[in-house]
Amino acid sequence: MKITVIGCGRWGTFIAWYLDKIGHSVSLYGRKSSAHMQKLIETRTNGLVELPETLHLTNSLDAVKDSDVIVISVNSQGLRGLMRELQPFELKNKIFVLCMKGVEIETGMRLSQVCAAECDNSNAVAVWVGPGHVQEFAAGVPNCMVIDSDSEDAKKTLVESFGSDLIRFYYGQDLIGNEIGAAAKNVVGIAAGMLDGLGLSTLKGALMARGTREIARLIDALGGNELSAYGLCHLGDYEATLFSPYSHNRMFGEKFVKNELYTDLAEGYYAVDALLRLGKTVSADLPICRAVYNVLYKGENAHDEVNALFTRSIKNEF
Amino acid sequence: MKITVIGCGRWGTFIAWYLDKIGHSVSLYGRKSSAHMQKLIETRTNGLVELPETLHLTNSLDAVKDSDVIVISVNSQGLRGLMRELQPFELKNKIFVLCMKGVEIETGMRLSQVCAAECDNSNAVAVWVGPGHVQEFAAGVPNCMVIDSDSEDAKKTLVESFGSDLIRFYYGQDLIGNEIGAAAKNVVGIAAGMLDGLGLSTLKGALMARGTREIARLIDALGGNELSAYGLCHLGDYEATLFSPYSHNRMFGEKFVKNELYTDLAEGYYAVDALLRLGKTVSADLPICRAVYNVLYKGENAHDEVNALFTRSIKNEF
Repeated sequence: MKITVIGCGRWGTFIAWYLDKIGHSVSLYGRKSSAHMQKLIETRTNGLVELPETLHLTNSLDAVKDSDVIVISVNSQGLRGLMRELQPFELKNKIFVLCMKGVEIETGMRLSQVCAAECDNSNAVAVWVGPGHVQEFAAGVPNCMVIDSDSEDAKKTLVESFGSDLIRFYYGQDLIGNEIGAAAKNVVGIAAGMLDGLGLSTLKGALMARGTREIARLIDALGGNELSAYGLCHLGDYEATLFSPYSHNRMFGEKFVKNELYTDLAEGYYAVDALLRLGKTVSADLPICRAVYNVLYKGENAHDEVNALFTRSIKNEF
Repeated sequence: MKITVIGCGRWGTFIAWYLDKIGHSVSLYGRKSSAHMQKLIETRTNGLVELPETLHLTNSLDAVKDSDVIVISVNSQGLRGLMRELQPFELKNKIFVLCMKGVEIETGMRLSQVCAAECDNSNAVAVWVGPGHVQEFAAGVPNCMVIDSDSEDAKKTLVESFGSDLIRFYYGQDLIGNEIGAAAKNVVGIAAGMLDGLGLSTLKGALMARGTREIARLIDALGGNELSAYGLCHLGDYEATLFSPYSHNRMFGEKFVKNELYTDLAEGYYAVDALLRLGKTVSADLPICRAVYNVLYKGENAHDEVNALFTRSIKNEF
């Protein structure tokens, strides 16, 4: 298949490398102004994967015109802007695949909703979520991921043509749950980092059980399947997020409570705001998200927030 | 309340210390032949907690006669033998609390079933499960745990009189699920150790999502609530099991696949046998348990077993 990958960050670059490697005809797009892209064009590597000559690198979005599939891996709050840049191409009958996590803050829309709202409705929109570190994939370590879409045809096409010995795809069956679960794991990652920073790492077990429960309730309230919180999109990504020293969100949470310098805000910083707004619309109680929000946005003391979670009235587990 | 704790291992000793600390009148029983018990009597410490003089140490089971509650923390396959030792006391109207994980191999019975079968039915049987390291509790780090019982009265009594700032108890509502979940986490712990030993630690994310799913299916088939697999009894204990260098089960799995010496078999070694037998009775498919069993009992190659899991036919996630 002909594929354009938009976004030359770590994940986008890996996806382009991977799809080329399993036999697709791939263009990787990055803006002219992107330092990442400049470096890729000059060196054909980002230090994690080496890009073969078969992989076309481009600064022009024109590549999308001939593509069957357009994979997008950009900052979640930038998705709508990108989709509007694509509108002059009047794309039809394409499959968009979103390899990104988040919820649009202003509207509370899931990313697949943002994507669909900004393109012709002959196009299908899918998401590709789940665990996996680029470093590990590049070293040949396999993992399981999920592809989901409201279009059964698109889902089948993607699972069949994107699967390999390296990535085993499951068919997702709950787009709401898979998107919300993926976005929310970054918030739980920040919470885990806060526990690490407070010297309470052992509470990450309870965080896993209660965090998944909270997100399951939210997904259910939004009309999805609560089990998705326990799937690859959310729980399956906890290893890479709650327990990895390299996880950006976890590290951000740790540095935040230790009052250490951090270079940029993690995705979960935006996601927690969006999730609380969404939760309010369906009256979902999100005590862990609320605690993370209180620490990040309202300057509350993290220790006090943990204690407050602990002294909530005793109750049934489910 | 008057309480006897039977079992002077790390967990039993901690529980005795904890229940004394929160104001109960506690006897800790260990066999005369136990080196642990000898050391406790001589030094009043096991290196983790210091036992105050208010805590009564005894080599005689007589203490159970005056106790309202009998907490048991012994090897799971030794529970039936212990209950038979208690029969001469003709105990009535007591609450037994099982702080242990496993399934009786020969019968496939849950431990609460073994306990109930071997005592007068005026007694109530409860389980106390969930995450928490003794070292961390001893250092004052709080955690969440679960108490469950078929007797609502016993459950209420225990949650109200055992809870504290250190341990926040939830009311369990699914004895089947909480017992099976607790026993099964040791098997998933061994699987995690095997992945670590194979250099595939990054697959522990997928293991968390697929392992909980498999145990959820088993619990459901046995008549419990599948959500219990995602609760404190199972998932909530993953931090302490799948990600702790100190977890006995994880370490055992790692050493096993590396052909390194291990001193004794982990609880999960027995649990996987019992769970597969149980699974067969209800036709539950347990591919991860089966893979662990094949490696431990049949000498199959661990890499091949992981590959076999990966090449199962592609399917829906839930």
